[in-house]
Amino acid sequence: MTRLLLLGAGRSATSLIQYLLRHATSENWFLTVADMNPAHLVPVLAAHTEHAHAVSFDILDEAHLGELVAQADVVISMLPAQFHAPVARACVQHRRHLVTASYVNPEVRALENDAQAAGITIVMECGLDPGLDHMSAMAVLERVRAQGGHITSFHSYCGGLLAPDSEGDNPWKYKFTWNPRNVVLAGQGTAKYLENGHPRFIPYQRLFAHPTTIEVPGYGAFEGYANRDSLSYRAPYGLNHVPTIVRGTLRRPGYCAAWDALVRLGLTDDSGRLGNPLDMTWRELVEAYLPVSVPRAATETELAMRCADYLGLHFAGPEMQRLQWLGLFTDQAVNQADATPAQLLERLLSKKWQLEPTDHDMIVMQHLFTYELAGQRHHLTASLVVLGDDATHTAMAKTVGLPVGMAVRRLVRGEITQHGIVIPTHPALYEPILAELATDYNIQFVEKDTVL
Amino acid sequence: MTRLLLLGAGRSATSLIQYLLRHATSENWFLTVADMNPAHLVPVLAAHTEHAHAVSFDILDEAHLGELVAQADVVISMLPAQFHAPVARACVQHRRHLVTASYVNPEVRALENDAQAAGITIVMECGLDPGLDHMSAMAVLERVRAQGGHITSFHSYCGGLLAPDSEGDNPWKYKFTWNPRNVVLAGQGTAKYLENGHPRFIPYQRLFAHPTTIEVPGYGAFEGYANRDSLSYRAPYGLNHVPTIVRGTLRRPGYCAAWDALVRLGLTDDSGRLGNPLDMTWRELVEAYLPVSVPRAATETELAMRCADYLGLHFAGPEMQRLQWLGLFTDQAVNQADATPAQLLERLLSKKWQLEPTDHDMIVMQHLFTYELAGQRHHLTASLVVLGDDATHTAMAKTVGLPVGMAVRRLVRGEITQHGIVIPTHPALYEPILAELATDYNIQFVEKDTVL
Repeated sequence: MTRLLLLGAGRSATSLIQYLLRHATSENWFLTVADMNPAHLVPVLAAHTEHAHAVSFDILDEAHLGELVAQADVVISMLPAQFHAPVARACVQHRRHLVTASYVNPEVRALENDAQAAGITIVMECGLDPGLDHMSAMAVLERVRAQGGHITSFHSYCGGLLAPDSEGDNPWKYKFTWNPRNVVLAGQGTAKYLENGHPRFIPYQRLFAHPTTIEVPGYGAFEGYANRDSLSYRAPYGLNHVPTIVRGTLRRPGYCAAWDALVRLGLTDDSGRLGNPLDMTWRELVEAYLPVSVPRAATETELAMRCADYLGLHFAGPEMQRLQWLGLFTDQAVNQADATPAQLLERLLSKKWQLEPTDHDMIVMQHLFTYELAGQRHHLTASLVVLGDDATHTAMAKTVGLPVGMAVRRLVRGEITQHGIVIPTHPALYEPILAELATDYNIQFVEKDTVL
Repeated sequence: MTRLLLLGAGRSATSLIQYLLRHATSENWFLTVADMNPAHLVPVLAAHTEHAHAVSFDILDEAHLGELVAQADVVISMLPAQFHAPVARACVQHRRHLVTASYVNPEVRALENDAQAAGITIVMECGLDPGLDHMSAMAVLERVRAQGGHITSFHSYCGGLLAPDSEGDNPWKYKFTWNPRNVVLAGQGTAKYLENGHPRFIPYQRLFAHPTTIEVPGYGAFEGYANRDSLSYRAPYGLNHVPTIVRGTLRRPGYCAAWDALVRLGLTDDSGRLGNPLDMTWRELVEAYLPVSVPRAATETELAMRCADYLGLHFAGPEMQRLQWLGLFTDQAVNQADATPAQLLERLLSKKWQLEPTDHDMIVMQHLFTYELAGQRHHLTASLVVLGDDATHTAMAKTVGLPVGMAVRRLVRGEITQHGIVIPTHPALYEPILAELATDYNIQFVEKDTVL
């Protein structure tokens, strides 16, 4: 029997747990789910008591972490990213394999030699993004290369969005399906990518001003803004000599221009608290950002008009429509004293962008390659759309959790022989996972290759 | 004999050390100067071996800190602000008084009860800004109040600048007389102040766009941009019911608009590294921020023209003149690999804005009050200009160090009886210090009161 230990059973772990339970009998696994608050796991594991149990676990209790790790054969961590270093250290100490969906951070990278010496495998970046993005991009890249093709550009976009049937009358066509704080702070810093052999740097205050339009067959148009660092993908993907590399985030059209208005107002700043009272209204907050040269607004509409004028937007235009829909100009209280602008915005958005139990989410990923083959220039898109089943088995939970579960299965079966830190850019890992996702879950990229 | 311990003898401590040595005989002091690198102190202390010596000191060596503090009667810390908490804790433990020029931070504030219980006085915010600003503002405020006046607004600006005779052909009329990094990152976050009873929030990307003009008698025009937090001065200054409170930083006219261009380009961002090579040129760096829709610039002038067009500035205008003077469009290398934009900008500025041995710096401070007295509305300005003597006894070193030295003298003489944390907003502290600065150093505010 192989003993699996899953650390962290939050929202993104539901589909992973389902996958592990589904295969527990045939693969002869016993699963321990360790979570801060394991009560919610009782009904999930009720029918599987022979193969699984839940334990209470606090990541700050290092002794308990060591005990749990020592009792397992393979550890799976779905904890927040900052906790992976202590987990990885415990795995090295007790010589246990580890699988996570998170980026290899410098602290984990520093364990490479120790992990090799311990003879263990640490599989990282095995969820959606990072994870499925690596696997699907590498599958195309390797095939094109094997055909003798020469890659000339690579663009790759991913977004966690709302399924079309859940967009309703929300003009943003967006709700939080992931960490709200990360969405509010998205893009802060300088985005860097490569275009025609030259570096491109986009400061935060320009990031949302000029999104790229992306078409996904059957799902219409999206817009993409550049991620902070597209350049770190060059080496792992073998793209060191490719002159154009852009990675970005997808939203529905119109989102970026309206978000740009929030950025320009100053509402996404998280670096200092405003000293505001709890009962300050949104109207008062927005007023405090507008020039004082004209009299203060008497009505909600007047304030919206002043704001539009200040931002150089049409009062009846799509950006102002989205801002008004959020309630930015109303008398509702901000409800948090002495907060940063970003905290107040997150609080407002959390009400308006809350996923309802009947909502479905949607994951969209698209890679765009150009390559030359036999004297012809090709444009190839590989697109993936995954819809959530319900509020528990969301598209996010499926696309993050299933690749992790499948990597665990390969690892237990001894199909991953490499020791040290591994990310799924090798065919031995991504080929069986992409095949299983397609066959068992209908999670499959649609490709379209055009000769230019 | 009273034993004084000075921790940290950097550039801003020169005038303080001179002051302490000047009074060591008459006041019967023995001064220990503890510095990371005490070699430079040997000539300074050579003529004063009966009253002073230097010791080598590393702030990270807590045991040595404790020893030194235990052997002193009064401790003076001119260390960087982040080290004041461990120093203050050592002073509480050994029941020693402490004087610093830095802001009371939350860690030091938490020691209030312990300091009172230990019967010690911790005098903070006793340099220039904070320090002289408190003293001089409070002197006017208390006088107006004593006359029966009613304060209706308070603006206060301070800047560390170049003396007019050192401005030369530098179009910025600015060089680094203080921590360069702080100058480059100045204003990041959201500035908050109060105007006509309403809060005003200015996001970083707007901060330098609309400076206020300030006139200082005999020294011409300056421009001021708002500091991050003007509101924290309300309570200590007794201004809770005053509807307009603004604190800001002074520069020479034209600085803010040109700095705004650097901000808009994205060159002041410090939140992420660019992955750039060491030999990337400034021209390549700036090019990476400009839109790719037009061909890359062939010459320095062409790049400057493209940059002007992108920023909506006149190519021959004062902002672009300042940017060109910095060498922003030249083929010189950025000379730092994988740096943040702010780090590269600081490196460039450090060459162009380096204070020469023959340069003189200048401190400018101006308070602007409006008040009502006997049915009349008054406008009162209190202005201070201090010129540096030379590259050692700079205006900055004098205005930061002398008030600290004078506070130490009062404290040793038993003139400060209050225990716990004290800032110089009480007449018992600021009156003798302002008098001594005026009498002995000709550092004196010039007031001008106009009936409106």
